[in-house]
Amino acid sequence: MSDLPKSVTIHEEGPREGFQIEPATIPTARKVEFIEALSGTGLKHIQVVSYVNPKRVPGMADAEDVVRGFKPAPGIEYTALWLNEKGLERARASGKLTLNGKISIYASEKFSMRNNNRNTAQEFEYARRVLDQYKEHGIPVERGSIASAFGCNFEGDIPTSKILDILRRIFDIAEENAIELKEISLADTMAWATPLSIKRTVGAIREKYPDARLNLHLHDTRGMGIANAYAGLEMGVDMFDACVAGLGGCPFAGHKGAAGNVCTEDLVFMCHEMGIDTGIDFDRLLDCARLAEDIVGHPLPGSVKFGGSLDKLRAAARTPA
Amino acid sequence: MSDLPKSVTIHEEGPREGFQIEPATIPTARKVEFIEALSGTGLKHIQVVSYVNPKRVPGMADAEDVVRGFKPAPGIEYTALWLNEKGLERARASGKLTLNGKISIYASEKFSMRNNNRNTAQEFEYARRVLDQYKEHGIPVERGSIASAFGCNFEGDIPTSKILDILRRIFDIAEENAIELKEISLADTMAWATPLSIKRTVGAIREKYPDARLNLHLHDTRGMGIANAYAGLEMGVDMFDACVAGLGGCPFAGHKGAAGNVCTEDLVFMCHEMGIDTGIDFDRLLDCARLAEDIVGHPLPGSVKFGGSLDKLRAAARTPA
Repeated sequence: MSDLPKSVTIHEEGPREGFQIEPATIPTARKVEFIEALSGTGLKHIQVVSYVNPKRVPGMADAEDVVRGFKPAPGIEYTALWLNEKGLERARASGKLTLNGKISIYASEKFSMRNNNRNTAQEFEYARRVLDQYKEHGIPVERGSIASAFGCNFEGDIPTSKILDILRRIFDIAEENAIELKEISLADTMAWATPLSIKRTVGAIREKYPDARLNLHLHDTRGMGIANAYAGLEMGVDMFDACVAGLGGCPFAGHKGAAGNVCTEDLVFMCHEMGIDTGIDFDRLLDCARLAEDIVGHPLPGSVKFGGSLDKLRAAARTPA
Repeated sequence: MSDLPKSVTIHEEGPREGFQIEPATIPTARKVEFIEALSGTGLKHIQVVSYVNPKRVPGMADAEDVVRGFKPAPGIEYTALWLNEKGLERARASGKLTLNGKISIYASEKFSMRNNNRNTAQEFEYARRVLDQYKEHGIPVERGSIASAFGCNFEGDIPTSKILDILRRIFDIAEENAIELKEISLADTMAWATPLSIKRTVGAIREKYPDARLNLHLHDTRGMGIANAYAGLEMGVDMFDACVAGLGGCPFAGHKGAAGNVCTEDLVFMCHEMGIDTGIDFDRLLDCARLAEDIVGHPLPGSVKFGGSLDKLRAAARTPA
């Protein structure tokens, strides 16, 4: 009936996605508290900050202090996002983070022009220069990554053929640099994906790259996040980015409770209930979701934090009245 | 890859599910306004009220006035919920509603005991008496319906074998009464279903009852609503109950924005984007979602009302800058 994986790896991005869209009024100490709480859930990958321009993203102006502040737990990979050489420099200077290089290209040329003022050909040129930096600093590169992979608010639908073409060029420049890519990440940056387009795209990629491990970065802006994750699971995808409580929001949405990234605890709930291991303690994760709401000071969109665990209800149902 | 239907029928239950959990402070005129707005979306089935004890459900105390108040549009079936003979009497007295009988049984005996003070055997006895009433009043019966079909907060998991057993007994009493059941409805009353359990249960039922049309009534309390609907679609289910804006809420949830029923416009968005016809005007439906929020006076959980239509973005993307 399906090709559900036995276990799934979740990359928690709540501290980065969540706090970067909040105003710069959240105390650094509370961000540190949140990262340390997440460290006690069983999550093995936590993206803690982005090193970006503090004028454009004031919520991340304290990135250095956040990274200095938290006590790392053993066995956890703490990561960061950077978008240029300066960001990479700051990430390297932290001395505390796992630096994972990647070859990252926008599927949408219009979005790339808007954000980076580079067309796709220029993006590939830029990616080559970034690879030189990674080589210089000994940063490993194992991932090819495509943003706005399922559609773009400025360019419209992204055909699968375009995704395959970009992937081919990503693997080409990897090969030129003697890099063996092990992972392919697809980001539904603007929430255009449906379960059907997830299946089509993932299916086409798996056919071409059967040995690559796939990662999905899903947004829930149109309510498709968990359904899209399920479609990915059915296609054997076993690595997902997610944000506790659905942190990440949606800057252009009408109110703060609007759905952002796919919600970690909703995703973990679905996995566990379908017999898929995540290595995560669900109740501790729920505590983190409540902590996240307390820190940002407004409701966050995740659902299961209200409905709660079924295991507790199962246990109660087994107890004679 | 899947068995997605070409078209889907949606039974809108927002006015009933939504307003019955709100306090009795919503003016009748606004409920009427909402029903008439829904009537302009292309929806063909709208459940407008429940005829229940106004002491237990004060939000439905004005059911008679609501039904008297709205102007019915041609081609739309307006329905109501009733739970006993008195409720049926009130529904009949309206003279304006389509009365659809059904044989309805709780999968969870504990829930049935709590709600109706009847065990499952007594539920079947009661169902026989209800069929007599339907016969007496010439009310057609085409549906067998199972509540709490995927799990129960008081009883725990519901095995598929139990669902099949209850269905067999439902079809038996239908046959005794010379009734040919054409539809089977499964309600995930307490939001225990996952896409996997939907597939398992629907698959088992379709094998036994290949000619029956299946309906799913899904709650989104744990964020699985749309994913569960997708799983149903993949199994060929082409009839869903849903509530505009996710009306219906969750009375035991921490705040009013908590997810309730599966959200009509999110479901319609998914269907349309996957090429499944619903007969519904998506933009008018979005207007109804915003109207619903205005009427209840608090945020409602549906997502796509923030993200909005992709078709508008597609059209804009095609326009040269």
